[in-house]
Amino acid sequence: MLRTHTCGEIRIEHVNTQVILCGWVQRIRDKGGLIWIDLRDRYGLTQLLLEEGQTDPAIIETARSLGREFVVKATGEVIERKSKNPNLPTGDIEVRLQGLEVLNPAKLPPFLIEDETDGGDDLRMKYRYLDLRRNPVRRNLELRHKMAQQTRIYMDGQDFIEVETPVLIKSTPEGARDFVVPSRMNPGEFYALPQSPQTFKQLLMVSGFDRYYQIVKCFRDEDLRADRQPEFTQIDCEMSFITQEDILQMFEGLVRHLFKTVKGIDLAEVPRMTYADAMRLYGSDKPDTRFGMEFVELKGAFDTVDLTSGKNFVVFDSAELVIGINAKGCAEYTRKQIDELTEYVKRPQIGAKGLIYVRYNTDGTVKSSVDKFYSEDDLKQWVVQFQAEPGDLLLIMAGDAAKARKQLNELRLEMGTRLGLRDPNQFSALWVLDFPLLEWGEDENRWFAMHHPFTSPKPEDIPLLETNPGHVRANAYDMVINGTEVGGGSIRIFQRELQSKMFDFLGFTPEEAKAQFGFLLDAFEYGAPPHGGIAFGFDRLCSIFGGADSIRDFIAFPKNNSGRDVMIDSPATISPAQLDELQIAVAKK
Amino acid sequence: MLRTHTCGEIRIEHVNTQVILCGWVQRIRDKGGLIWIDLRDRYGLTQLLLEEGQTDPAIIETARSLGREFVVKATGEVIERKSKNPNLPTGDIEVRLQGLEVLNPAKLPPFLIEDETDGGDDLRMKYRYLDLRRNPVRRNLELRHKMAQQTRIYMDGQDFIEVETPVLIKSTPEGARDFVVPSRMNPGEFYALPQSPQTFKQLLMVSGFDRYYQIVKCFRDEDLRADRQPEFTQIDCEMSFITQEDILQMFEGLVRHLFKTVKGIDLAEVPRMTYADAMRLYGSDKPDTRFGMEFVELKGAFDTVDLTSGKNFVVFDSAELVIGINAKGCAEYTRKQIDELTEYVKRPQIGAKGLIYVRYNTDGTVKSSVDKFYSEDDLKQWVVQFQAEPGDLLLIMAGDAAKARKQLNELRLEMGTRLGLRDPNQFSALWVLDFPLLEWGEDENRWFAMHHPFTSPKPEDIPLLETNPGHVRANAYDMVINGTEVGGGSIRIFQRELQSKMFDFLGFTPEEAKAQFGFLLDAFEYGAPPHGGIAFGFDRLCSIFGGADSIRDFIAFPKNNSGRDVMIDSPATISPAQLDELQIAVAKK
Repeated sequence: MLRTHTCGEIRIEHVNTQVILCGWVQRIRDKGGLIWIDLRDRYGLTQLLLEEGQTDPAIIETARSLGREFVVKATGEVIERKSKNPNLPTGDIEVRLQGLEVLNPAKLPPFLIEDETDGGDDLRMKYRYLDLRRNPVRRNLELRHKMAQQTRIYMDGQDFIEVETPVLIKSTPEGARDFVVPSRMNPGEFYALPQSPQTFKQLLMVSGFDRYYQIVKCFRDEDLRADRQPEFTQIDCEMSFITQEDILQMFEGLVRHLFKTVKGIDLAEVPRMTYADAMRLYGSDKPDTRFGMEFVELKGAFDTVDLTSGKNFVVFDSAELVIGINAKGCAEYTRKQIDELTEYVKRPQIGAKGLIYVRYNTDGTVKSSVDKFYSEDDLKQWVVQFQAEPGDLLLIMAGDAAKARKQLNELRLEMGTRLGLRDPNQFSALWVLDFPLLEWGEDENRWFAMHHPFTSPKPEDIPLLETNPGHVRANAYDMVINGTEVGGGSIRIFQRELQSKMFDFLGFTPEEAKAQFGFLLDAFEYGAPPHGGIAFGFDRLCSIFGGADSIRDFIAFPKNNSGRDVMIDSPATISPAQLDELQIAVAKK
Repeated sequence: MLRTHTCGEIRIEHVNTQVILCGWVQRIRDKGGLIWIDLRDRYGLTQLLLEEGQTDPAIIETARSLGREFVVKATGEVIERKSKNPNLPTGDIEVRLQGLEVLNPAKLPPFLIEDETDGGDDLRMKYRYLDLRRNPVRRNLELRHKMAQQTRIYMDGQDFIEVETPVLIKSTPEGARDFVVPSRMNPGEFYALPQSPQTFKQLLMVSGFDRYYQIVKCFRDEDLRADRQPEFTQIDCEMSFITQEDILQMFEGLVRHLFKTVKGIDLAEVPRMTYADAMRLYGSDKPDTRFGMEFVELKGAFDTVDLTSGKNFVVFDSAELVIGINAKGCAEYTRKQIDELTEYVKRPQIGAKGLIYVRYNTDGTVKSSVDKFYSEDDLKQWVVQFQAEPGDLLLIMAGDAAKARKQLNELRLEMGTRLGLRDPNQFSALWVLDFPLLEWGEDENRWFAMHHPFTSPKPEDIPLLETNPGHVRANAYDMVINGTEVGGGSIRIFQRELQSKMFDFLGFTPEEAKAQFGFLLDAFEYGAPPHGGIAFGFDRLCSIFGGADSIRDFIAFPKNNSGRDVMIDSPATISPAQLDELQIAVAKK
């Protein structure tokens, strides 16, 4: 090694030791007689000292020629600092320089390499290799490393085998869009990059691997929303001879292990909620359960209550659902604050027509925006329905049931944020169970698998496939943390006949099913065990553990919303010779 | 779990326990009054017992309906076996059946699911999920898992951070052919799949990550030789502030750790050899050092010896090099055996013109195929040069120096095999150092980087770049085990100027260098540390640890020599709609 120590490890007990350090110049303070250099590496920061009259003048000259981010090798003796820095692990010592070598000079970086930088997003992405020098970014990737380590420790300890599945596979039209790779050796044919190793992990179960996992890159050619990446990483898992309960316990165990070992947090037992309850109480299949604020119905879809009709308020009378939340202690909200909330739900992304409020004042009186239609007695009934207390504010929406729930979900989250109930360093996990097996595609006018076509229906619901497909529940489950889906899976179909029936139901002709999934259907005939699994979005899981909103901060070299890597400037054109060899042509519209 | 125990864990102390097992029917022996079923899972094999008169007749009927590979759930009581099987961990016990449920029937597999199968390669690949049920194949993947585990344990313990680098990157014409991925969002542009994360790991060093590793999929669109795969896995590593010596020690440590923990072998300290010596002594940059049989020159290129000229033997007189090996104790080889060796070296793949032999008989006489030209005294000189003993056989080749060495390398390996000196369970590792920086491309009429364009020349050899480029040595090193290159790396260029010079030397215009590697050249201007690294071929390393020749046996779902996955039938055509969306067209010649 060019160094004897890192910049993070020298302590008071090293005083009088000769050391050699290598690193980057973080900053220089030149007080004339004394010069200090902060030298930085991945492990920490060590202060170097030069003294006019003491230090070799040639070294002082070199020191004065240094700029930020120069790479240097510094030799010297560890001495005790006169003025110690208790905020720095190396703050008790400094190194009196006896040698200083510039290993590589540096141009002035385009933004500050500090915890708080002056660089904008685009600039930091173009110079990602400089952005990665910043402590918060490096710490995110260190967290990610630790998450992967601890995931493997847990899975290995539970007898799971990590098996690498192929990246060059076959395109299947079901699901999201595939990235494809032209095959030069098989002209006119293409590989696809996997959206998940789903069929391979199921085949591994047919192979008797019993317990499989993999931390694996997956790919989706989607129009990228704010926080999606075309390539992303999954913790992908599958088990044989299990029931849903076994999966829930095994992977609740994983998440608790990660919280314990990575964050030092004892996560409470993970509660469970059906999809139906999640939709009813939160209007979302991934409710943020760090706070309550459950939905209350005034005119019900699920409940039979109706506390609104017959008062000539046409908005409520014509609504399928009148539903609200109780914003505890917000009765004092000003007109302006309530207007803000109304504007919030009327934004096109949410699309509500309006927002009704009821103030339950601390003096016991009730005041609402619909006083014209509802008497104080009417409103008091609402207050009871909401189990509200004086000082509370009821926020009520109405309309088509599904839409109103979705809109109220947004309002609930917004209120949670405003009331400080969504601390990123508090963690609330939840299992959501019993998802519907199917969802109706309005545009395509057919049923789609909500999870994927390999998910098994609940046995008792199979007869409903013929009569009421939308009510068939799946043996499918999601893990939600802080309102974000971090993982999901299902018990799989393992019988050829049922799998064929499912393909049939999803509109595959027998020929299509055979062409795309024939190998899996065949495999099911040669002794397939009951099996099921789960996949966690690893980037997302890391971002939640890191208390951050964006997964991009937890990916070393992310792509932007157009799928571009602006640092390496990719994608890019390729040469005519390459196209020719691949026997493809660009056919721009 | 559907089971209480696996099929591998029940022992004599479980006698009288009620157990539930799940697994595959390995075989059934029906002796009329007694029926035995061997039930198999990943963990082992347990014998189930049914007794006419004792066992419920319905269960016996179910048992008689079973076929090979049926998946069943078996309930019963553990009893001590009358006739124990000491070769089976569960051989002391059997399970007296009280319940038997068929979870899934199975068609007769197309080949035997046994250690020795009757299935040919093609059939086994088409039904890979059945092949993976076989113990040897499963054990290979278990070995691979353990290799990955132990690699991570070692690297984590040395403060390396695992960082995931992107899979969708940019095509670069240098090196092997890239797989490319059309970008739908950027029509006419393509991503490329990485042949290695080379530039990204170097950027991570510029970012100050100090120690990086990754077990990572890489891709090369090459015409596949027998044992290449289009996608393969590397253990990819990079370190900062190091010399070559640090890398050699760190990764010798990794390999020794793997041998110790995975194989229980204390690997000897890994010897080092220069590329020049390896070529001189073995005619190969990856010599198999499980055995000696070093080359001896009779008419030298490296040495100044000439023990052959002036005797009118035109083959030797016109040869640049006369060189041979001493096949110890082979003087008794029959004429037929020697003819076989001659035929071996004359095969087109090797292409030698012929083979000269000298027998040093046990009675001290010398007999050769060139007695017409060389006297017994002449031949005795050769014997001395070879340090041969009575009973040895000298095998000698001649011709163009490079070709003769290459041919003799093949002969040496063949002799090693014939003499049983290449036991796959013996391991001999070697560092080969000081590779040439450049090699001449005859067809392209220019120099190419032997390793890659980022490899640093030895500082003392840099002046030779102008005068004698072929003699410039690189700070590059390979690890060779049993004659196979398992890893290679180099100390990198970290100065912008030298890197530009190297691109220039390799025929890049400044514009091309900027377009392809501008981000790296830029990065070198912002404070790049001295760094270097190595990458191990993980598939290959696993195959060597497994004592096998083919990497395919250590990959769960490999592709064949045409790059096809015959199980899923990929690559395949994609729909016109997909092509249209990607704005590309197939342009078959």
